Amino acid sequence: MPREITAYSNPLIKWARDLRDKRHRREARQFLAEGLRILTEARETGRLPSLLFFAKPSAHHPLVQELVRAVEAAGGEAIETTPDILSKLSGKDNPQAVVGVFDEFTSTLAGLDRSSSGIWLVAERLRDPGNLGTILRTGDAVGAGGLILVGECVDPFSVEAVRASMGALFTIPIVRTEWQPFLNWLREGPGQLVGLSLDTDFDYRGARYAAPTFLLTGNEAQGMPSDYAAACDLLVKIPMLGKADSLNAAVATAVMAYEVLAQQGGTTRKA
Amino acid sequence: MPREITAYSNPLIKWARDLRDKRHRREARQFLAEGLRILTEARETGRLPSLLFFAKPSAHHPLVQELVRAVEAAGGEAIETTPDILSKLSGKDNPQAVVGVFDEFTSTLAGLDRSSSGIWLVAERLRDPGNLGTILRTGDAVGAGGLILVGECVDPFSVEAVRASMGALFTIPIVRTEWQPFLNWLREGPGQLVGLSLDTDFDYRGARYAAPTFLLTGNEAQGMPSDYAAACDLLVKIPMLGKADSLNAAVATAVMAYEVLAQQGGTTRKA
Repeated sequence: MPREITAYSNPLIKWARDLRDKRHRREARQFLAEGLRILTEARETGRLPSLLFFAKPSAHHPLVQELVRAVEAAGGEAIETTPDILSKLSGKDNPQAVVGVFDEFTSTLAGLDRSSSGIWLVAERLRDPGNLGTILRTGDAVGAGGLILVGECVDPFSVEAVRASMGALFTIPIVRTEWQPFLNWLREGPGQLVGLSLDTDFDYRGARYAAPTFLLTGNEAQGMPSDYAAACDLLVKIPMLGKADSLNAAVATAVMAYEVLAQQGGTTRKA
Repeated sequence: MPREITAYSNPLIKWARDLRDKRHRREARQFLAEGLRILTEARETGRLPSLLFFAKPSAHHPLVQELVRAVEAAGGEAIETTPDILSKLSGKDNPQAVVGVFDEFTSTLAGLDRSSSGIWLVAERLRDPGNLGTILRTGDAVGAGGLILVGECVDPFSVEAVRASMGALFTIPIVRTEWQPFLNWLREGPGQLVGLSLDTDFDYRGARYAAPTFLLTGNEAQGMPSDYAAACDLLVKIPMLGKADSLNAAVATAVMAYEVLAQQGGTTRKA
């Protein structure tokens, strides 16, 4: 049976609320995800929160009841609380029906099966959590094998990144690594490293993307370092006709990824 | 000569700071834009702030000096202030060198020249300011003729939208209108209305996009109403192979817009 907490001063509420803070999240190695859609998607991929907060008015929703049963069956705890407290946990005025506390999880390079997909996304020093989440969401949509984060990237478990991923955080593998280990791993097997660059005239539609293609997107403000660009098998540019000289990083990644997907026949993911 | 304000309690600072608030912005019909890059881009398109705040440490930057001269020559006021006050104006910890207060401006349907571009972006009930700004940025990159906002959309002059647009707010026409006036205007001349939809199996790469193509993107959560979809000349779908059933609205718009651009030869904008 779920226990009930209605006081914002409750230490467990405060502890969960603090997971919005990066330092606290890093120590706890846990993170917050919110919303029935995302938590149900997580459950379908086999991930359940160790703590599940749900609002009393939502207690009779079938999906909430399923989540509560699943969390309790797995040894986690379900806690009934108020919409107001849920709102404070999620930091949004219109609180979601549920907020979950999940254990962090990432994959390792060694754990990736590069034959599992024709498209892999690689981002280096990505700074914006919304961009990271959006890239995950795009990765899910194109059937990417995973997202490889190189160097000092924003935390994929931040509330903003989880929210922007719309659940894709749970559906595609995420690896956090550095440039040299990534490059070493990449060169141990087949794979074309394609860098998005402003310093080339080679149009992205003119290239051929064999499977597996690793799409490298650089830092939002600076792009990628020149030695990273030099290590790419191919540098391509997305044409820009306007006054500005760049696209949003998540947009550029998506435009590229859909070109690769189209060339690879639209169905790169193994069943 | 710029005057100097160093007190946060100064009424002008407070007034400008309040432009971050929607209601105050609507009354004043003015908005904030920040950063040397964006303000310089605005100047190049002929738009100058009526008020320009710059931080004392940046006073000797040539681009800041050019902006100050241009603003004063145009009858506006330049105000030297502290990095701390600039930070409070912009709401960011790392303040930009400059923050400007601009008069709002929008275009009207009647003022658009549909022969000026092969691509037009149309968004209905767009809710997220980051998405709106990112769509503007993409619009600039593909040489779109303009962005037409249909129905109750988020304010394109919000600080978040202006920031995400990276200056594209100043480079492409924005029209705010309702569905029926838009449709009436559209049907007065040539133009194909293409709707992004999940309720079709027609792959976006299989369609032909004649100039001018009007790309319609629906609300982030609900998509577009069925009667809007019925009014489209064509509904297309971007394939999604993953567990989720949707893309970020700005991402979907960009993937579509770049397909249209590629089909139209990559150079749709008149010189």
